This record gives sequence, C-alpha cells and structure tokens, in this order.
Amino acid sequence: MNTNIKWSLPAVCFVWQLSMIILFGVFVRYNEESDTHWVDYRKENNITSDIENDYYFRYPSFQDVHVMIFVGFGFLMTFLKRYSFGAVGFNFLVAAFGIQWALLMQGWFHSLDYTDGKIKIGIENLINADFCVAGCLIAYGAVLGKVSPVQLLVMTLFGVTLFAVEEYIILNVLHAKDAGGSMVIHTFGAYYGLSISWVLYRPNLDKSKHLNGSVYHSDVFAMIGTLFLWMFWPSFNSAIADHGDGQHRAAINTYLALASTVLTTVAMSSLFEKTGKLDMVHIQNSTLAGGVAVGTAAEFMLSPYGSLIVGFFCGIISTLGYIYFSPFLEEKLKIQDTCGIHNLHAMPGVIGGIVGAISAAAATNTVYGDLGLENTFDFTGPFAKRVPTIQGGYQAAGLCVALCFGIGGGIFVGLVLKLPIWGDPADENCFDDEIYWEVPEDEESVPPILAYNNHMIPNKHADM
Amino acid sequence: MNTNIKWSLPAVCFVWQLSMIILFGVFVRYNEESDTHWVDYRKENNITSDIENDYYFRYPSFQDVHVMIFVGFGFLMTFLKRYSFGAVGFNFLVAAFGIQWALLMQGWFHSLDYTDGKIKIGIENLINADFCVAGCLIAYGAVLGKVSPVQLLVMTLFGVTLFAVEEYIILNVLHAKDAGGSMVIHTFGAYYGLSISWVLYRPNLDKSKHLNGSVYHSDVFAMIGTLFLWMFWPSFNSAIADHGDGQHRAAINTYLALASTVLTTVAMSSLFEKTGKLDMVHIQNSTLAGGVAVGTAAEFMLSPYGSLIVGFFCGIISTLGYIYFSPFLEEKLKIQDTCGIHNLHAMPGVIGGIVGAISAAAATNTVYGDLGLENTFDFTGPFAKRVPTIQGGYQAAGLCVALCFGIGGGIFVGLVLKLPIWGDPADENCFDDEIYWEVPEDEESVPPILAYNNHMIPNKHADM
Amino acid sequence: MNTNIKWSLPAVCFVWQLSMIILFGVFVRYNEESDTHWVDYRKENNITSDIENDYYFRYPSFQDVHVMIFVGFGFLMTFLKRYSFGAVGFNFLVAAFGIQWALLMQGWFHSLDYTDGKIKIGIENLINADFCVAGCLIAYGAVLGKVSPVQLLVMTLFGVTLFAVEEYIILNVLHAKDAGGSMVIHTFGAYYGLSISWVLYRPNLDKSKHLNGSVYHSDVFAMIGTLFLWMFWPSFNSAIADHGDGQHRAAINTYLALASTVLTTVAMSSLFEKTGKLDMVHIQNSTLAGGVAVGTAAEFMLSPYGSLIVGFFCGIISTLGYIYFSPFLEEKLKIQDTCGIHNLHAMPGVIGGIVGAISAAAATNTVYGDLGLENTFDFTGPFAKRVPTIQGGYQAAGLCVALCFGIGGGIFVGLVLKLPIWGDPADENCFDDEIYWEVPEDEESVPPILAYNNHMIPNKHADM
Repeated sequence: MNTNIKWSLPAVCFVWQLSMIILFGVFVRYNEESDTHWVDYRKENNITSDIENDYYFRYPSFQDVHVMIFVGFGFLMTFLKRYSFGAVGFNFLVAAFGIQWALLMQGWFHSLDYTDGKIKIGIENLINADFCVAGCLIAYGAVLGKVSPVQLLVMTLFGVTLFAVEEYIILNVLHAKDAGGSMVIHTFGAYYGLSISWVLYRPNLDKSKHLNGSVYHSDVFAMIGTLFLWMFWPSFNSAIADHGDGQHRAAINTYLALASTVLTTVAMSSLFEKTGKLDMVHIQNSTLAGGVAVGTAAEFMLSPYGSLIVGFFCGIISTLGYIYFSPFLEEKLKIQDTCGIHNLHAMPGVIGGIVGAISAAAATNTVYGDLGLENTFDFTGPFAKRVPTIQGGYQAAGLCVALCFGIGGGIFVGLVLKLPIWGDPADENCFDDEIYWEVPEDEESVPPILAYNNHMIPNKHADM
Repeated sequence: MNTNIKWSLPAVCFVWQLSMIILFGVFVRYNEESDTHWVDYRKENNITSDIENDYYFRYPSFQDVHVMIFVGFGFLMTFLKRYSFGAVGFNFLVAAFGIQWALLMQGWFHSLDYTDGKIKIGIENLINADFCVAGCLIAYGAVLGKVSPVQLLVMTLFGVTLFAVEEYIILNVLHAKDAGGSMVIHTFGAYYGLSISWVLYRPNLDKSKHLNGSVYHSDVFAMIGTLFLWMFWPSFNSAIADHGDGQHRAAINTYLALASTVLTTVAMSSLFEKTGKLDMVHIQNSTLAGGVAVGTAAEFMLSPYGSLIVGFFCGIISTLGYIYFSPFLEEKLKIQDTCGIHNLHAMPGVIGGIVGAISAAAATNTVYGDLGLENTFDFTGPFAKRVPTIQGGYQAAGLCVALCFGIGGGIFVGLVLKLPIWGDPADENCFDDEIYWEVPEDEESVPPILAYNNHMIPNKHADM
Repeated sequence: MNTNIKWSLPAVCFVWQLSMIILFGVFVRYNEESDTHWVDYRKENNITSDIENDYYFRYPSFQDVHVMIFVGFGFLMTFLKRYSFGAVGFNFLVAAFGIQWALLMQGWFHSLDYTDGKIKIGIENLINADFCVAGCLIAYGAVLGKVSPVQLLVMTLFGVTLFAVEEYIILNVLHAKDAGGSMVIHTFGAYYGLSISWVLYRPNLDKSKHLNGSVYHSDVFAMIGTLFLWMFWPSFNSAIADHGDGQHRAAINTYLALASTVLTTVAMSSLFEKTGKLDMVHIQNSTLAGGVAVGTAAEFMLSPYGSLIVGFFCGIISTLGYIYFSPFLEEKLKIQDTCGIHNLHAMPGVIGGIVGAISAAAATNTVYGDLGLENTFDFTGPFAKRVPTIQGGYQAAGLCVALCFGIGGGIFVGLVLKLPIWGDPADENCFDDEIYWEVPEDEESVPPILAYNNHMIPNKHADM
C-alpha cells in the first residue's frame, strides 16, 4: 500500500486553510462583547461593569475545555507503545482544523446576524467549536492507528458538518437541552466513529497485533490524558450552561458523577481479573463514563445523589463493555474499536440522553420554582407553553436524531474513506508511527534481543 | 503473604459507594447559589448580577486545586521506577472516594441547614472536600508502595473523619484562621501518615530496595506533579480566602514564598552533594515547602518580604530534612517515609502554624485598618471582642490540635491496618506494580543483562 | 573544564535571594486591591462588589501564563534524550529567581507610588513578572545544554534588567502597545539569546552530537510543553489587555492564529521531507509561531480572518526556518541555536511587531468607534492628540528598540559569560545531565551495545 502523503497532506492543509481564510473574511466578525464597540454597548445598555462581559463568565471553563480537547483527548490515546506521535500529533492537527470549520458551520446556524449577514463570534462560539471537534476526536478513537492523517481530516470535515446540522435540529428545532452534550457530542461522535470503523473493517489487522498494546511508560502518559479529562469535565458540562446557578449546578453534578464512577470502575476491574489485579485500560477510560452520562442532565436539578447514581452504573457498564462487549463487537459485528469508544462514549452517551429525558419529564414547579423551571428549560418565546413531560419526549427525540446522524453519517463517510487514494497504512503497518513520522533512532527502545542479532554478533565475532 | 484483593477491593468499593448514595440521598442538597431558586434569591436580595454568584469567585481556584489533588499529588509520587501505576492510580481511587465522604463529614459540621436538616453544597464545599482529601494523600506519601489499595481506602475513611473533627475544633471552636491549611491539612496529614508508617514499620524492607528508586523518565514524570503543585499553590492558599483582597493577597504571598524556596532548595542541594550536583529528590519536593509554610498566614498582611523569608528558610530546612532527617527517622525512629513527607509537609506545616500564630498576634489596626482587621480575622459575633494577641494564642492552640489528631489518629489507624486481612505486599514485593496491576510486557524495560541471561544464551549456543 | 559548581551555585542562590528579601523589605508592598484597606477603598470609591477587584479579571489568565512559564517552556525543552532534568529543572530555577527580580525592576518603572516610594503590587504585577521571565526563558532555548546553571542565573539577572528598561521605553516613552509581547518579549528575548549563543560559539560542539537529539519518549514529553503553550497562549496575549472587549478579542485572535499555524506547519513539514513524513521538531515548535506573531495586534481589531492570515504565514516561515535557516545560522553565522528559537520567537516576533504597526496605522474611527479607538490605544493624557498613523510609526520604533536591546544586550552578556569562571561544560559534555545532576542508574537506558561491552563480556567468558 502506498502511504506516501507527501502531496495529499500538504495539499489538503493548504487548500482548506486558504478556504477558511476566505470564508472567515466574508463571514466572520467580532460580536458586541468582543468588539471595540463594547464600550459604547455597555453605556447604552446600562451594564455597570466590564466584569459582566460574557468573557468572564466563561473564559475559565473555556480554557479547561481547550485542555481537554488537546491534552485530554491527545494523551488519552498515547497508550499504544509506538503510536504516541500519531495520537497526540494528529489529534492536534485535526482539532486545529476542526475548530475553524466549526466556527463557520455552527456560526451559520446559531450566530448569524441577519442585519448584515455576518457570523458574530465571542467566547461561547470558541467553546462550541471545541465541543464540535470533541465529537470528531471521539470518532478518531475508534480508528486510531488505522487511518492516514488525510483520512482524519476528511472525517473531521464531514464530522463537523454533520454535527452542526444535528445540533441545530436537536437544540433549536426540537428545543432539547444538552449542556454537556451526552447526545449531541458523545452519542453522535461515538456512533460516527464506530460506523466508519465498521465500513473500514480490516480482517487481517492481527498482522500488527504486536504493536496494538501498551508499554509501561505509554500507560503513564495516557493517564495524563485521563486525569485532565476527568478533572476538567465539570468545566466541560458547565461551560455553556446558564449563568449563575446553571453553571454552578452543572459543575457539582459532574464532580459527583465522576467520583462515583471511579469506585465502581475499580471494583469491576478487580472483580473480573483472575487475581483481582487492576487493568489500566479500565482506569484510563471507564472512570470517565460518569462525566459523559451526566452531560445532558448536568444543569437540571438532578440532585447530588442522582449524579452519584448515574456515575455508579456507568462505571459498571463501561468496564463490562471493555471486558465483554469490545471482543463481541470485533468478532461478531466486525467493528474494530481501538480505544473502546463504545464503552466510554457510546453507551454512556445514550444513558446520558435517557437520564436527561427522564429528569426533564420529571421536573416540577415545586423543585425548580416557577422562574427556575422557565429559565432552566428556556420555556420562552415559541416554547412558552411547553411543559416538562412534553420536554422529556423531545429530549428522547433528540437522542434518536444523534444516533441516526452518527450511524448514517458514519457509513457514508466510511465509504468515502474506503477509496484507495488516502494513503492509509497496510494491515502490517497499523499502530506504527514509522509510517507517518520521522521517528528518532532510539537506543533505549531497541529490544535487547534484536540488538543482539543486529549489532552484537559482528562484535562478538571480532572479539573472538 | 496473600495480596489477592479480588474480593476485598470490589466489596469495599461497592459497599462504600452505595453508602455514599444513600447518605447523599438523605442529607445532601444544592445550596441557594447552585439551586434553580437562585434566580428568585437574586431578586429578593437585590443581587445585581449573576457574576456575584460565589461560583465565579472560586471556580478558577477550585479547578486549580482539583489539578493539584489528582495530577499534582498523583504524579509527584510516580518517581519510583515500577510504581507509577500505583502512584497515580491509587491516588485517583482514594481521592475519588475521599471527596464524597468529605462532603458529608464537613457538611455535617459546616453546611448543615438546621431548618430542614440537609447539607447544602456549593462550590466552596467542593474545594473543602478536595482540601480534606489532600490530608489523606499526604499521608499516602509516607506509605507509598507498602500498602494495599484496601488499606489506603481505610486510611482515607478514618483520615477524612478525623480531619473533619479537627478542622471543626480548629476553625470553629478555637476560631483559628487557616486559609491554606498549614495546620489543618499539612500538619495533620503528615503526622497522620508518619504515625501509620511507624506502626506499620517493616524491618526487612530492604528486600525490595532495588525498586525503591527512580529511573530517568520516572523522575521526569514526577516533575509534572511537582510543577502543577508549585504553579497552582497560589490557588490552593487563596481558594477559600475572603472575597476581594483576601484571595488577592493570599495568591501574592504564596507566589513569592514558593519562588524563594526554589533558590534555597537548589543552593542546599548543590552544597551538600560532593561534587555540587543537584538531586532530583530535593527539586521535586523541597521546592514546594514554601507553599506549605505560608498556608496559614497567606491571607494575613504577611507582606511580600515576609513571604520571601518564610520561603527562604523552608527551602533550607526541607532539603536538610531529606539529607539528614529522613535517614535518622528511618534508622532511629523506625519511620519509613517513602516520599519524605516529613520534610515536605510536617516540618513546613508546623512552621506555617507558628508563622500564622506570630503574624496574627502581631496584627495591628494601623497595618490592617479597623475594618480590615475585623474582616480578616472575622472578629464578629461571639468573637467580636477578641484581639490579635489572643488570636495568636488560639492559632498556636490550633497547631497543637492538628498535631494531636495526626499522631493519635495515625497510631490508631495504623493498628487497624496491622490486622492481617488487608492484602498488603510482602517485604520483597513492595514498590512493585506487579502485585496489584496488570503490567504490560515491556520489551524496553528488560535490563539487557537479564535479557542476555534469559534469551540470548540459547541463541548464542544455537549460533555457535 | 571544571564544571564543579559546588560553591558558585549555592553562593549565587543564597546571596541573590537574600538581596531580594532586603530589597522587597525596603520597596515592595501590597497595592490597594490586595491590601486589607481594599474594604475601605471599595466603600470610598463606590465599588459595588468584590468581584470588580482586578484579581477576578486577571487571575484565570495569570494561572495559565504561570503554567506556560514553568510547564510550557520547561517541558518544551525536554526533547533532548539526556537533558530533561536540566531542561525542566534549570527552567524552574531561573524562572523562580527571575520573577522576583522582575517584580522589582518592573515595579520601579511602572508601579512606584511616589507618595511613599514603595512599589505597590497586585495580580497584574505577577503576570508582568512572568512575562519578563519569558524573555529570559526564550533565550535559554538558544543555549540549552551548553551553559551552567550559574551562567543561566547571570543571563537572567541581566536579561530581566534589560527587559525592564526596553519595556519602559517601548510602552511608556514611545507609548507603543504590545499586549502579547511580540516585540517586548519575543523579539527581545530571542535576539538576546541568539547573540549570547553567537558570542559563546563552540566550534567543536559536534563532540557531543550523539546527545543532541531526541528519543521517542523525550519527544512525547516535549509535546506536553508544546500543547500547554499552545492551549494557554490566548491567555498569554489577553492577560494584561484591557478589561472587557480587550481581553475578549485578544483571546479570540490568538485562538484563531494558532489554529491556522498548525495546518501550515503540518503542510510544510510533510512537503519538505523526502517521503512526506512529519518531523516532530516542527510540530513541537512551529505550531506556536502564530501565537507569537499575533501578540502585539491581539487586542486590536485585527479581525478573525486577519488572525488566520498571520498564523498561515508564520507556520510556513517558521517551518522553513527549521529546514533551511537553522543550518545556515549555525554554519555561516556561527550561531548554535539548540531549540531553534530563531524560528519560533525571533522571526515571528518581528513579524508580530510589523503586523502591530500596520494594524495600528490602519485603525479608523469607523471600525473602532470613537470611544473604542481612544480606549484601545490609550489616546489619553499626553497622548490625547496622537492619531493611528503616527501610532503605527511609534509601534515600528518599538520593534527597533527591542531588536537593539536584544542584540546589544546579548553581546555584552555573552562576553561576561565567556569568562572562564562559570563552570560550563566541555564540548564533549554538552547536552548531558550527568554534569549537573545526580542521574539515577537506569537499567533501561543502557544501550544494549554498551551493556554488551561492559557487562556481558566477562559473563560470556565465564560462560565458556
């Protein structure tokens, strides 16, 4: 197979980046809070202090989300012994392209100023762009080590486009709520990636089996990713929640769900190993499932124990997924899922959608307060007459939309990526940085037995 | 020794997590700033903007503290060559359990709403839970590599309980101030861990001496922990300080104390090595001593040069501790202190308590202003008549309480942990991830000399 | 050569730290927002809420900048196979000293209260101290592995001093704007380091050529540095920008410029390798060039597409620099630049200065609004009559000042560092941690070929 990407990769990067510049030139401008006219806007609107600029409500969360996207997702995938450059490097490339395209796609749907036809951006757009890219990075997890960077860029181009459409349908048309994106981000992203991986099934992948595993230090690197995702997940789920109690509550709920997940993950990991030892794969991944599953309901009055319960079950289900479901997926359904995104994002995402639907349907004026209920679910404007039970139905509908876009979009994009023009690696070269990276000659990493064969025999002969 | 934890670890995790869910269900609710009724509360209390929700005062510090707990403490302990999984993984487990139990224990003492008997939580509770867990993670440093995860969970259960009681006595009964927890967190946590280690003394620990040390890359991993602790320590000491100047000043004092400590640590490390070389153990640990020691006084008018002085001496004392005191502790007092927490937390913590007492006693209306003095020391309500010199005495009393709880509690918990039911490793298996983790087969890490003996001799014979 | 620093390093650390304490004692106090009198100040000035304390506007950015200085710069330099301790450790030492000296030097110029002759510090001073140190850490990149820690401290002492003077001239005398420090930090720092490296030219540096490269894991460590710099750069460029729209816009512009740079860096890296493979050196460094180049103009109305354009070209130029210009610098100009700071900081810094001058000169009332123009460029007080075109000229003058201070200062300091008293390593010992650090005996890292020669031959003989 030809894995030379000397022309295709630079061409795609240059052309797409130039397109971004042109489209931004035509469409994208600062919004009233990031424009120098803010000083006038403040005066006209009796805003008493600069601190009420949305920037100060959201910037700390934004930076945490940014860390999750680039360090969190990137390092989580460094667990493979010889694919750390690809994990962290291609994650970097794909996310850097994706956030630009997402600003445009989401901008057209959500931030278009009809008076002048421009997209007006501020801090919330940056967060949403990061969110949108998260969906594509989740999908990357399923195909890690098996695709070329050009394929990843194509996956991202289509992924962001599909994301913006399903997001618009779910949030605006159906008026479902999904602050932490259990449906919009995780369910969509995971099924998108799994479907692509299904179409790109490699029957002879075990030719590179020796590289599809970790070494001691690569597992420690992966824990950097795990922990930054885990720690900053409260910021993820609260980043675009309502000012005030909305952000506050979303952070608390996520903090609790994640804590609970860690304990049940450890319990299951120990219980299902013969000698009670822990498996790093579970610790690196399943501990995060609670954050995914509490995404939709994070800003609702889920209550602290509700969050703990969600985390409790997700730790169990996600770990069981790694133990039983991943082998089943690969052998029976022919889905090769390198990072196990089915267990970390797909199942918890669906659970999150269901939890969201139920907790929305169960919302009452007693618990929320009249004003609180209206605020939390935005029962205003055209949705002023909607009641919680109906809202629950629309939430469930949103979950179905995310599933359909993920599976349908993934199959379509998978077929595109099957074309023999993208420079993907041969079965025996998967999970190997050598294909796309200049890898340093690494004295340390030469297994002694090879060193013996390659270098030592001549020496030995000379010696004798 | 039986290190099989296949039943004990899952059982403890499941039962305790279920207990947490039940207790949270009975006791824990959102407070008025994280509840949907905030929108009503705002109107009733003439709060002009959502930005005055406590969330925005404390969330950035909270996330920094969160990073310190999970990445800071976790990676600081990865320095051992084959215990990085245990360092970062058990730290993760213990902290995830501890924060839940801390929310309850601290809640009953500090956040109980007597009108309905519920604990009402908000962002400050999350920070305090992280703080409480920090005490237990400090204690973990003393026993790193020598205990089972079940023992760590038991240590944490008791540790959090003791913490909540001593904290209540120190902060509420004695009305001592301790924003950064020199006494409440560091002194207590360190003596708690050292006492446990004393009770669990292993006379034959040198059987696993070959694993009680670092390799090149494990030292670099540990620097990730060091630096995130060092950088975010200003957030730690300011996280629950008073709004406005209190948080502002605490951050400045900590920033300065830590900078000063780095220089004297480097100086001492170089001075006491034969050839002037630096020792990574000192750089990884003693550079943090200034942050510990400035904890209590961080929100006082310690003045910038006062902070530098505290840092100056702590760098010296802590490094001397590693050079002279740690061997003494081990040989004479039979305290085996894997991470040297005596030098990083115990001595600087006590110094911090003393600095706090002195600077409180020396506070004057001239320096603080009338209103400032009242605000800083909360000389209101039942404490309206207290004066600085008296406050100094209560601060000193607080230090004694922390010491007593640490030592007494540690001895008690150590005796509990001595029971032969916890699955702790044999002397020859300490500091070894193999006992509790599935460790990947790691071609790289086979020492060549072993490789030669194991694999090469047959080859060689075949060759000849 | 004598690399014993047993007396010189401790002496310098102790004497300088003591000097800091004395100077802080004489000069440095809290400002009105970090002093207990804030509570009075608030009342007197009708400040309605503690949240309007500058601390809350800037603390999140400050912590991000702090991470860039200590983890970002530190880990970016860990790429060398056996100089990771020196990279991250000396970076730590130098920065900890530098921030103290910077608080004084910048304080005398910018924060001196003439009523009592004291420097009054708050959160903005801490950020500026970090910024000032960034200039010296950039310079460290050019001499990495070739100097002793004592030399680094001397470089920092002079570097901070020169920085404070050039900064005063550029920002106050010329009244140029430079929020992200393209000129003040990057241009100055880079030429300062390159000039020092030029004076310290080592003709026989290839004696340690075998250590002047990376291994697999050291490249992954370096990506930690790269990513934290990349992610937090929006905070860097916005940290001291104007409250409100200034900070908001600076973050958006930097976010976009950096995203664009990643794509063109990847494109160029692939295009110029024979087989289209990517080079980690480019990914680690050139991806950051856009952040440097957008520094000056970050708070201007550069517009989103303007930021993308700046990033686009900087990715190209910086990568070309690594491919063509670095070898040229070394062979023809005799400048040995270990980290390639010419490509990452010098060229993008100069571009940033020019972009700033042009965009300032092109500013109009239509785009900025009357009030916005006045606010953004501080056309008040003695500068009330300045117009944009004139401002553009002063911006350009500022760039020249930065260049002159960098080159002139660097040559002077280089000559000082050439004195044979600083304990720098011999040519054959460069890039080797063994010289200044106790390096753990590292079974893993013994190259098998050496192991064969050292250990195995005796065994082999015994065997026969």
